[in-house]
Amino acid sequence: MRCEIINTGTELMLGRVLNTHQQWLCRQLADAGHAVDRQVAVADTADAIVQAVHEALGRADLVVTTGGLGPTSDDFTRQVIAGLFGLPLAEDPAAAAHIDRWFTDRGRVPPPGVRVQALVPAGATVLPNAHGTAPGLRLATRTTPPRWLVMLPGPPRELRPMFLEQVLPWIGSTFPAPAHSVCRTLRSTGIGESSVQALLSGPLTDLVSAGLEIGYCCRPGEVDIRFMARGAEAARLVAEAETRSRTELGPAVYGIDDDTLEAAVVGLLARRPATLSVAESCTGGLVASRITDVPGASAVFRGGAVVYSNDLKQQLLGVRGETLAAHGAVSEPTAREMAEGARRRLGSDFALALTGIAGPSGETAGKPVGTVFIALATPAATRVEHHLNRYDRGTFKQVASQQALELLRQHLVS
Amino acid sequence: MRCEIINTGTELMLGRVLNTHQQWLCRQLADAGHAVDRQVAVADTADAIVQAVHEALGRADLVVTTGGLGPTSDDFTRQVIAGLFGLPLAEDPAAAAHIDRWFTDRGRVPPPGVRVQALVPAGATVLPNAHGTAPGLRLATRTTPPRWLVMLPGPPRELRPMFLEQVLPWIGSTFPAPAHSVCRTLRSTGIGESSVQALLSGPLTDLVSAGLEIGYCCRPGEVDIRFMARGAEAARLVAEAETRSRTELGPAVYGIDDDTLEAAVVGLLARRPATLSVAESCTGGLVASRITDVPGASAVFRGGAVVYSNDLKQQLLGVRGETLAAHGAVSEPTAREMAEGARRRLGSDFALALTGIAGPSGETAGKPVGTVFIALATPAATRVEHHLNRYDRGTFKQVASQQALELLRQHLVS
Repeated sequence: MRCEIINTGTELMLGRVLNTHQQWLCRQLADAGHAVDRQVAVADTADAIVQAVHEALGRADLVVTTGGLGPTSDDFTRQVIAGLFGLPLAEDPAAAAHIDRWFTDRGRVPPPGVRVQALVPAGATVLPNAHGTAPGLRLATRTTPPRWLVMLPGPPRELRPMFLEQVLPWIGSTFPAPAHSVCRTLRSTGIGESSVQALLSGPLTDLVSAGLEIGYCCRPGEVDIRFMARGAEAARLVAEAETRSRTELGPAVYGIDDDTLEAAVVGLLARRPATLSVAESCTGGLVASRITDVPGASAVFRGGAVVYSNDLKQQLLGVRGETLAAHGAVSEPTAREMAEGARRRLGSDFALALTGIAGPSGETAGKPVGTVFIALATPAATRVEHHLNRYDRGTFKQVASQQALELLRQHLVS
Repeated sequence: MRCEIINTGTELMLGRVLNTHQQWLCRQLADAGHAVDRQVAVADTADAIVQAVHEALGRADLVVTTGGLGPTSDDFTRQVIAGLFGLPLAEDPAAAAHIDRWFTDRGRVPPPGVRVQALVPAGATVLPNAHGTAPGLRLATRTTPPRWLVMLPGPPRELRPMFLEQVLPWIGSTFPAPAHSVCRTLRSTGIGESSVQALLSGPLTDLVSAGLEIGYCCRPGEVDIRFMARGAEAARLVAEAETRSRTELGPAVYGIDDDTLEAAVVGLLARRPATLSVAESCTGGLVASRITDVPGASAVFRGGAVVYSNDLKQQLLGVRGETLAAHGAVSEPTAREMAEGARRRLGSDFALALTGIAGPSGETAGKPVGTVFIALATPAATRVEHHLNRYDRGTFKQVASQQALELLRQHLVS
């Protein structure tokens, strides 16, 4: 089954929003065994939508569109698809009743124009929208075999349940089951992309000859290694590739698939078991927020202090005034006292502390923007690392939080 | 000038990563007056890349590709483009020397295979890579007028400076200046998409007749209203649309373009001036992290306490044991005491506090997952809101942090 996705939205083409639909839909389809062959994004204009859908239906068995089904003047998809298929539009009574009920249930009068969302091309299947007012639509071409067009509403809260509950089951019953495929991504940190490949290419040669596909994807300080295989041997090839890679890369592999560094850290703490607290200046709560993104973090995470001001560093963490006066807030001794103070006062086995200059301003003599001191206090000792992360403010925070989590992880796995 | 973008990457088609290149490149090109006409993503296979590039060059004056220029076995773009154009590949001495220097400067031996990145199709212009090893490439077709293909490396840290410093200036000198265009997005919260359009459509009718384009984009609790116009009247049309919309929507408009709710809050605090602290349980530091994402936040933000455990709520914030025992940690009285404790102990004019159940577990009788109490303590009084945010854990944290920031913003603008 050949499958393509078309995302409509002028905001996409103007670069005003991220296209999260692409990743989500591609992921769902790939996990069901149908890797998407092509994804296209075009503006909310009738010509662009018609052209993209027409071309995609010329190549693919299934085309999924997102967006353009809402009530506003830039929502064109319903009309232009009806035109492309030569089908009249008529109001679907159930969809219209759902829209009315949606507003009356919320004590509101349906706004003008909102019932345009109940218009349906003749013969289309209506996909009810439990989380919004615009139904999805499914249409087949008159060719043999038919090619299918599925239109989904743009808001993720509406699109996602509709796809999972109504589209995926229909795909399973409409298209032949694909060759069994297995995909696994190893997530690593601390080794560069070329060096990872140099370490792995020899040991994996025979698996590649047997059909294993390898992909690499790198981000600052991280490399993902993705293994994929199809057919009866898929699971064995991928499992063997993972085993050999872990042997070569050792503790640089921190997780698989959607694992995050924070989840790895929470998992390692839970296994000891041991508790953690954090003291943050320059990262402003990001380390605590990443840790608490992990379900179950409350079992190991005590809490944190976000200490943007010097007096709070003293008051909440017990950093000494002499230390701040002699070395400054951004210094090795201050980071050390923050971590030790957090460990003692917040009552945890381990504590991480970060103090640095996120920028864009704040540079002082000998301490450029990007400077960060990261301390790890353990029951036995305190260790402080110094990094220079020359990035924009947001990336600085992300990279510094990554370095702090990795400092702790390396301690926990060593 | 017609422009298309092609993002290559099997990880994109398998839904393993978000396509951030699309948004970033579309934004840069749109701001330079060249709205992208189409964006396509395909897997890292020679056939898919050749087909996508061939089709795009049949439509567009400029095609920009991302990815596939690295050193690993799934980096195909250089070779397949040379094949498509019928050009031999040869090593570029400057690019090869740069790669060697990159590794020796870092005290490392160049890994095997890394010099493949210095191979260049005959006649291509090399775009040096200041932040990595893979140079970009620029090629023209032999047609009249020529059509251009620009190939950029995949890592954002390499792609972005290369595009800004080497590609955008070349676009400006190669293609005729586009019609002057103006784009502005109003960011609003608290009014639904249909209601926003119902409020605005009448007052903006004459501007739309004069060429104003309007787009709407909604997220949970937020609606973006995007105005665009071209030509000599563009600035006047967009400015007039903004003025009238602000009149209709009032304080629901919190900012423009890339403004964030946290930046609006920091700006309002700075204008008073007044200071803020936060006490977070269920959001785990996210509110503090969002506030400290804003450059200059240190002028108004005192700090925060992330209190995941009950004893820390008492110890750091002075929440009373009786309150926790009688009402529980997730309750109106606890939220109130957290906010008042943060305001008093962290020494700020305002304090926000959040306590709730992010899930997936943690539900108790009468308090389902998604329950959150949000308190705002001011010099005059404390106000507590109760919301039920039935989302996944990450979205729950995002929505709750948004509600807290909006509670403070509404107080500051009223």
